[in-house]
Amino acid sequence: MELQTQSQEVDAPTTITIKGILGLLMSNTDAKENGKRVISLGIGDPTAYSCFHASNAAQEGVVEALRSAKFNGYAPTAGLPQTREAIAEYLSRDLPYQLAAESVYVTAGCTQAIEIALSVLARPGANILLPRPCFPIYGLCASFRNIEVRYFDLHPEKGWEVDLDAVADLADHNTVAMVIINPGNPCGNIAETAKRLGIVVIADEVYGHLAFGANPFVPMGIFGSIAPVLTLGSLSKRWLVPGWRLGWLVINDPDGSLMSPKFVERIKKYCDICGGPATFIQAAVPDIVEQTQEVFFRKTINILKQTSDICYQKIEDINGITCPTKPKGAMAFMVKLNLSVMKDISDDIDFCFKLAKEESVIILPGIAVGLKNWIRITFAVDVPALEEAMERLKSFCERHSY
Amino acid sequence: MELQTQSQEVDAPTTITIKGILGLLMSNTDAKENGKRVISLGIGDPTAYSCFHASNAAQEGVVEALRSAKFNGYAPTAGLPQTREAIAEYLSRDLPYQLAAESVYVTAGCTQAIEIALSVLARPGANILLPRPCFPIYGLCASFRNIEVRYFDLHPEKGWEVDLDAVADLADHNTVAMVIINPGNPCGNIAETAKRLGIVVIADEVYGHLAFGANPFVPMGIFGSIAPVLTLGSLSKRWLVPGWRLGWLVINDPDGSLMSPKFVERIKKYCDICGGPATFIQAAVPDIVEQTQEVFFRKTINILKQTSDICYQKIEDINGITCPTKPKGAMAFMVKLNLSVMKDISDDIDFCFKLAKEESVIILPGIAVGLKNWIRITFAVDVPALEEAMERLKSFCERHSY
Ligand SMILES: Cc1ncc(COP(=O)(O)O)c(C=O)c1O
Ligand SMILES: Cc1ncc(COP(=O)(O)O)c(C=O)c1O
Repeated sequence: MELQTQSQEVDAPTTITIKGILGLLMSNTDAKENGKRVISLGIGDPTAYSCFHASNAAQEGVVEALRSAKFNGYAPTAGLPQTREAIAEYLSRDLPYQLAAESVYVTAGCTQAIEIALSVLARPGANILLPRPCFPIYGLCASFRNIEVRYFDLHPEKGWEVDLDAVADLADHNTVAMVIINPGNPCGNIAETAKRLGIVVIADEVYGHLAFGANPFVPMGIFGSIAPVLTLGSLSKRWLVPGWRLGWLVINDPDGSLMSPKFVERIKKYCDICGGPATFIQAAVPDIVEQTQEVFFRKTINILKQTSDICYQKIEDINGITCPTKPKGAMAFMVKLNLSVMKDISDDIDFCFKLAKEESVIILPGIAVGLKNWIRITFAVDVPALEEAMERLKSFCERHSY
Repeated sequence: MELQTQSQEVDAPTTITIKGILGLLMSNTDAKENGKRVISLGIGDPTAYSCFHASNAAQEGVVEALRSAKFNGYAPTAGLPQTREAIAEYLSRDLPYQLAAESVYVTAGCTQAIEIALSVLARPGANILLPRPCFPIYGLCASFRNIEVRYFDLHPEKGWEVDLDAVADLADHNTVAMVIINPGNPCGNIAETAKRLGIVVIADEVYGHLAFGANPFVPMGIFGSIAPVLTLGSLSKRWLVPGWRLGWLVINDPDGSLMSPKFVERIKKYCDICGGPATFIQAAVPDIVEQTQEVFFRKTINILKQTSDICYQKIEDINGITCPTKPKGAMAFMVKLNLSVMKDISDDIDFCFKLAKEESVIILPGIAVGLKNWIRITFAVDVPALEEAMERLKSFCERHSY
């Protein structure tokens, strides 16, 4: 009809989103049929479990800021000065230099930091290098901004190290940036490669400090004087408050020489069109980052270490799936399907849909993060639920393999 | 240097932002020199004045949602179902049909609703029709999305009515939408024109219900069966909580026939890359929109009516500035400079900078909203501050006119 005109005829990008596919899986469970309650090892939102509760101090900090009635008005679009300052201080603890408050832009979660980073880098013909596996919002955002995506592989058997030769092969004069998820990919000589290619490194550190292997967390910003680094992060994971939507985009350029002033100006302007996070939540951030006790973080790390160990050991014991590297951080890890030993599973999607239907266990098919015939298991789940889910996964695999 | 490469060489759009120019004006005040405290009639953030305080009930609703610890996790990216439902109910009260919850997308303020609307409409070669004056975020957002902007005039002497002939003249087959700010522009046969042109109407109703003239507020969505209407709004103004960053984008298409399914799908996908508002604030919205007492809204309207009257009358009395139409809504209005009677004022920017310097009164130059040699006065200010500011404005004009 006449009115369905030019203005609406642009397709939505076809990128799969995690939430989209988990929703489909969820509606494929059949608890009535199989008699089992649904357990999701799908998404990195641990707040459903009481062992992953936000700290009372953080919550009361927000209540106090709200009740003061001093933070009902607009914040500057880059964020409240005291919030930027506090985040700069927090991140500087792990850097060999001091970040300025002006280098920090406060965002509505790490998600909006991703959106800003990709949008300010977009220009006609641009391409970006993304790791495989990758958080799918990068691909989706790139497609909305008409940025071509090129994927580089990680080496599963070398702790998901970046294949830097592949990176160099993919890059050309239209490459604007490469993305790394840290921890998850170690940061070694990535900066040197980025320098050589003349591109920006986008370091997604939403899981920053959630490391429990032999190596401590190393922020990519340490290498900010070698190559320009945009560090993205949020309160979501470490403080267990993904629903608060409080994140940051940080320019790591200690000598002030790698980021052009025009580019910095563009980030500033871009913040004006972003909704940004609530002012009173921003106002609570200084207390939250300064006063959260080490014991709070320790507790989370201990649980994640325990739950990841449970998963890892159980998987060793299951025929048909293997985990090439023991998880050392974050809240999820990748597991490889060995389809050749399975009777009636055609691929990762088929695996996950049948698992949901027969066992009411939700696991993300690897294709959602770019790795076909892998699955991604989230271990930010309480121990009893996790053990039951792994048990069901085991019987599922037994039933479906030779 | 080598590293300042392709990736960073895109300029920031040069659009003036309200906050940017107000910041410059603020730094041009000289309270030490002139002995006067700064009074800002610049921005629509009334929360600085105690007469414009958020309701206690709204605040405690948010506290309760936060303390329940049930809303620290992710919300669906389109918003919590109960929040979408409550906003649909709220808006349906003034519509001849019932909005479905699925037609509502919860956003980080009206600002993010603008960003979404323009981004989903963007495509190569697209242009958009904006009113003059207009909220500058539209122009800024369009330039980030490479949408060409074409301005149509409003008739100041006819209550800022849309010049529909101008709209028709500007439109071509690449026009995707026209924007109206409502109240501010009445909506009459705008929908018919949009229908004829095959474009979407974006109705910015952030000031919805803040009407105090003879006519009540009429939502553009009423005409949603004539032409496709996207209604944008937020809690910011009517509930006096701009810092809470809670807004909405609503598809007004009662017959479900005007918006293509592809377009709706695109909006949904786009929400996945947006940060969105905090889950616990969303959770408080049903109570906030259902339970805020009429007396709370009345009080705001009464004050705004009173303060706009004070401004209007005072301006009648000042040589060199005129107000073509008595303000009937929102929180700000446009005043015309008559430069021919002024001795040493070259334009609106000059006027505002000198006023800031000599009188410590901040007023927005019209150019910031697209109208050169006008000024925009915000009257969401308490009465004593407003009276003093208008007094100073008067002596300023006297001093600078023949
Ligand atoms: C790698 C990665 N980046 C970013 C995000 C989004 O973070 P936020 O919740 O702060 O928006 C996630 C969420 O799971 C993630 O896994
Ligand atoms: C016309 C108009 N639209 C949108 C906005 C932004 O609204 P919000 O504060 O909800 O983001 C404003 C703010 O002043 C405005 O005047």
